[in-house]
Amino acid sequence: MNLEEKIRNIDGFPKEGISFKDITTVLKDKDAFKYSIDELKRLTEDVEFDLILGPEARGFLVGAPLAYATNKGFIPIRKPGKLPAETISYEYDLEYGTDVLEIHKDAIKKNDKVIIVDDLLATGGTVASTIKMVEQLGGEVVGLYFLIELTFLNGIDQIKGYNVKSLVKY
Amino acid sequence: MNLEEKIRNIDGFPKEGISFKDITTVLKDKDAFKYSIDELKRLTEDVEFDLILGPEARGFLVGAPLAYATNKGFIPIRKPGKLPAETISYEYDLEYGTDVLEIHKDAIKKNDKVIIVDDLLATGGTVASTIKMVEQLGGEVVGLYFLIELTFLNGIDQIKGYNVKSLVKY
Repeated sequence: MNLEEKIRNIDGFPKEGISFKDITTVLKDKDAFKYSIDELKRLTEDVEFDLILGPEARGFLVGAPLAYATNKGFIPIRKPGKLPAETISYEYDLEYGTDVLEIHKDAIKKNDKVIIVDDLLATGGTVASTIKMVEQLGGEVVGLYFLIELTFLNGIDQIKGYNVKSLVKY
Repeated sequence: MNLEEKIRNIDGFPKEGISFKDITTVLKDKDAFKYSIDELKRLTEDVEFDLILGPEARGFLVGAPLAYATNKGFIPIRKPGKLPAETISYEYDLEYGTDVLEIHKDAIKKNDKVIIVDDLLATGGTVASTIKMVEQLGGEVVGLYFLIELTFLNGIDQIKGYNVKSLVKY
């Protein structure tokens, strides 16, 4: 399947000059959705891992089905104030201002092997922050998987040395 | 499996007097997570449907894996400004103030049969609003599925006449 054909481009969203990659057209197409998850599953087959982490909210759309498909547990990475138990947080820089992500402190045990899954690798800020939190909790990141990678944003530079795989590259 | 034992109660979140049902302990337990999705799948087996809808963000955690498991497409219901293409929206009342949900206008075609999936049926505002949007687009809601139902909040009164099923009731 040519997955790129299933992704909708929306020019000017969320602001002028950006061509947004809309994955809702992939999700609603049952064959494209199943293909995406099955392909990501195939890409994970060369690593051993215990848990899948996905950042709110679109990371849930890819990471949670992949956790079901690979029979692993899923850990949500959330914006501040959303997780009910004790958390650790990580603040990272955006183009303007900063953003904060949180993870439950008991989500990962020392030496747990995890993979991080998101819909999109753009500038890499979200995934780099997620890695920091995993490592702070004593876990090991054994792979980073994306539906889409925007190579021209060089997010890969933020995650050098990690095992990174993407289904569609622009 | 006793799924209720896997749900964590967090007293005082998000505010005093509330005992929050934390499903992250279900998600991270691969057997409990698989069991939850498989049980929801089993409950859907008596209806025919084309698409699964899930509200942001926790609805994604249950609805997207269920869409994969049942080989259906998934439609995200989102907070305002998150969906990139043309949307319709629905405003509903909260205890204090209002909230707004959006769906892509082209997400559902006339006569599509859909089910709505969320982690929690509480007061029913989110799901009742989602039903309104589906029906406005000409779709038919053939089932509503929840991991947890808080029966004491009487959310069921907002969705009378619909086919409602929940895995765990409090």
